[in-house]
Amino acid sequence: MGRARRFDPDRRTRIIDAALATIAEDGVAGTSHRKVAARADVPLGSMTYHFADREELLRAAFSRFCATISGRFEDRLTAARGPEEAREAVVGIIHEDVFATRDDLVLTHELYALAAREPAYRDLVADWMSHSHKALRRHFGAHVAREIDALIEGLTIHRSFGTRAYDRGLTRDALRRITSPPEAPG
Amino acid sequence: MGRARRFDPDRRTRIIDAALATIAEDGVAGTSHRKVAARADVPLGSMTYHFADREELLRAAFSRFCATISGRFEDRLTAARGPEEAREAVVGIIHEDVFATRDDLVLTHELYALAAREPAYRDLVADWMSHSHKALRRHFGAHVAREIDALIEGLTIHRSFGTRAYDRGLTRDALRRITSPPEAPG
Repeated sequence: MGRARRFDPDRRTRIIDAALATIAEDGVAGTSHRKVAARADVPLGSMTYHFADREELLRAAFSRFCATISGRFEDRLTAARGPEEAREAVVGIIHEDVFATRDDLVLTHELYALAAREPAYRDLVADWMSHSHKALRRHFGAHVAREIDALIEGLTIHRSFGTRAYDRGLTRDALRRITSPPEAPG
Repeated sequence: MGRARRFDPDRRTRIIDAALATIAEDGVAGTSHRKVAARADVPLGSMTYHFADREELLRAAFSRFCATISGRFEDRLTAARGPEEAREAVVGIIHEDVFATRDDLVLTHELYALAAREPAYRDLVADWMSHSHKALRRHFGAHVAREIDALIEGLTIHRSFGTRAYDRGLTRDALRRITSPPEAPG
């Protein structure tokens, strides 16, 4: 049993789920091994078996979070055929995917705040950004891809905090302007 | 003396300075009345005279921070004459003003993380965004102003966390595309 438990992959996943839920509720600062263990319903010893310390747990949790968001982002862009559909995929990302839930909003900003204060977490954010950039590069030139990525970031932040209503048509229009004249992809 | 001390405006300013420095170093979660009092070199009683609780101190500190950043932003745009200079002002904001210091980077993301988790702080962020929007509206139409503001947000975040070098010429070029054809300001 001891051995089986050590290699129980569900348990690791459950701990990471619990860590993300705890961060979303109480912030990074309010997230302890003890609190996550209670939420995941695992003994504290099991926590320290899977994650040596809080640092390792936070990294694993945010890595999973970034991979999930990146996955959605890539799926949208991989499915698009041609620049028109690619722009429409970006509209979908902005209006449906990013900060789809309050937890996503909190987790993103908790990660940014952590990375701003502690350079050790910057690679996570840089990797995430590099994945987004690569996905956009399937359809757009390097510079435009960076600008679209910035627009996605800025428009979603401003939408989530601002008081103004957002309109897909306006987003579509902005993307048309920023991609015109088209720069060759690749 | 007791009365003079109560109305000592420098002390309040010093406490807010100390609060911002503490948040930049230890995050919102690591910022207590006690720690800020020690840094500002004021007795704890003076803290509670000026700020009833931690909440009130955080709000005052972040309000001052937003006003400082907004002031720089507005100065740049007020000085610009015509769309060409306005775009150049935005280039300056992106490449010189936003996240000019590590403290600005940390404070911005700490505020966003706080506002994402606690709706009580959203009005601070919404006000800040509304000021930026108004300053941009001097030169650009409502939709373009919002898009430029999003570009400023996204480009500066991606620059501060990413690994890529940034070029003013590319920013200038992106602004030319997003403002073309020009929408009437006002």
